Amino acid sequence: MTLVEAVLSGERLALARLLTQVENDTPAGRAALSELFPHTGKAHLIGVTGAPGTGKSSLVNQLARYYRRPPEGQAPRRVAVVAVDPASPFTGGALLGDRVRMRDLSGDPGVFIRSMSARGSLGGLAPATGGLVEVFDAAGFEVILIETVGAGQAEVDVARLAHTTLVVEAPGLGDDIQAIKAGILEIADILVVNKADRPGVENTERALRGMLQLAHPVDRSSLHHGRMVELPVATGNPEPAPAWETPIYRTVATEGAGVAELAAAIQRHRDYLTSSGGWERREHARLQHELDAILQVALIARWRDSVPAGRYQEVLDRLLSRRLSPHQAVAALLDGDLAP
Amino acid sequence: MTLVEAVLSGERLALARLLTQVENDTPAGRAALSELFPHTGKAHLIGVTGAPGTGKSSLVNQLARYYRRPPEGQAPRRVAVVAVDPASPFTGGALLGDRVRMRDLSGDPGVFIRSMSARGSLGGLAPATGGLVEVFDAAGFEVILIETVGAGQAEVDVARLAHTTLVVEAPGLGDDIQAIKAGILEIADILVVNKADRPGVENTERALRGMLQLAHPVDRSSLHHGRMVELPVATGNPEPAPAWETPIYRTVATEGAGVAELAAAIQRHRDYLTSSGGWERREHARLQHELDAILQVALIARWRDSVPAGRYQEVLDRLLSRRLSPHQAVAALLDGDLAP
Repeated sequence: MTLVEAVLSGERLALARLLTQVENDTPAGRAALSELFPHTGKAHLIGVTGAPGTGKSSLVNQLARYYRRPPEGQAPRRVAVVAVDPASPFTGGALLGDRVRMRDLSGDPGVFIRSMSARGSLGGLAPATGGLVEVFDAAGFEVILIETVGAGQAEVDVARLAHTTLVVEAPGLGDDIQAIKAGILEIADILVVNKADRPGVENTERALRGMLQLAHPVDRSSLHHGRMVELPVATGNPEPAPAWETPIYRTVATEGAGVAELAAAIQRHRDYLTSSGGWERREHARLQHELDAILQVALIARWRDSVPAGRYQEVLDRLLSRRLSPHQAVAALLDGDLAP
Repeated sequence: MTLVEAVLSGERLALARLLTQVENDTPAGRAALSELFPHTGKAHLIGVTGAPGTGKSSLVNQLARYYRRPPEGQAPRRVAVVAVDPASPFTGGALLGDRVRMRDLSGDPGVFIRSMSARGSLGGLAPATGGLVEVFDAAGFEVILIETVGAGQAEVDVARLAHTTLVVEAPGLGDDIQAIKAGILEIADILVVNKADRPGVENTERALRGMLQLAHPVDRSSLHHGRMVELPVATGNPEPAPAWETPIYRTVATEGAGVAELAAAIQRHRDYLTSSGGWERREHARLQHELDAILQVALIARWRDSVPAGRYQEVLDRLLSRRLSPHQAVAALLDGDLAP
């Protein structure tokens, strides 16, 4: 049995091994991803982001527990958690800790938790995150929770990757902290005020509501900036779907309060995406983004291989001595024009 | 007189116009940048970054004032401020406000303040920031303060751009907020605890000192990830320069307290860079990064022009229907291999 077959048949050790291959972007990992790819596209990808101290990890735990032990009449779903830690460049270790978690779910074969470091990604998600998610999707995990600390690019990346994005806030993190985060409304499908038993919860919720009122609904597929090729918009259905209105939920994750209601809202968002065509649009945007990213790396690698050794250095030297400007240097590299 | 000549001769209106051209990346702006480029390389680029609420803007104001009105015996220097605002995608406006500032310096021809929005840059600095800095440099501004809100990619970008990077903290922003920021030590040449008259200043300074002790000194030119071409390291001087030890300064910017000491530390850092070869290394890394960024955009544009219309869409369709994996799709686009 190959590693891929073992993963498809549900072997956990094989899954763990393949995740490592994919995280390290090995040739075997890439080949396995291509083999698994036809099996992907079924999982509900849920991004969970927010500032440190908002209790994201506890909330993710509670959601996982809920999906494993749903109310009477609903089937449990297999849950994967991809926790992306911002890493210290010095210690190499994760800063968040708290990876010894969900003890009450340990031993449950329907749960798999994977922490990865965002080290080297300079503020965004680790490039391998999308690959890990594809492995879990192919391996039959129906819900994939992708947890990341809210910090600029990582938030945008997770919203690109997920179908449904939760942005978690908590009372008392300071008004100016809130203020800077107006941009996150662009990515939030559902806002969660966790630690809602703390004083100040009304203020936090009011601030969020105020921001939502300022905001116009945006089609989040516009997040897909920088496409390599701009495609015409499909015109099959000229009627715009009713816009999703970002709801605000209160939770106390440590006690599980509000988690069932939040899970119901996540389900409503999924239903909304499915009925409005949003699910397909997000899949489309995500895969096109992945294609573009890989294509970009490949184009650069090919160009590099095509340039005579020493040519780049020669042009760079002229740039450093300010005989060529950056734009002139690029023209020189691409057209061999060293005129000035 | 051309616009470039007018800028070189110090005309403020011409400068403002050219900055707009460069910010909008117009053909005229690009041509002007190439013309101005030989005049660059003299300014001291100082990045100032930190969370909202730390008082960065006030500190930048005070530094500008200090450089304009230095102590007896020192010459005033011309100062430009590039303030990069994170913009709300909804209002389009800057979130920080506070752009009506430095009233006491208004009318001083030796100061020029330019605000720009980071909108569209998805978490990083606006791509035009480097161009604006080059214009100011060519126009004879000796100190260029680049102010940006500390948020992941923007911090890394500003550290790439600047010779000297100040990271500003303030007491009472919460311990978990501090914790997440361990990564910023990688970019800080000087740490500033502003609002140092507030309670908790000792705790903040202690936390920073603790992080510094954990940290090993790193050559910041390693920040220049993702070079298009890796060059051998110059071996002219095999002795490593003594490492710069990141100092911590306390300031109360609203009262100007500690600003002279901070300015002296900035000068020491400049002297350190000059004597250790670090100045050249940073110039080198910055220009190579700029070259690579422009080259990347140009390579993609060329590739796009070389692909038959409809080809990208054809491959994308196969990807979306999961007949091709992302890596297979890239191979199909580059090699025309549609085998699977």
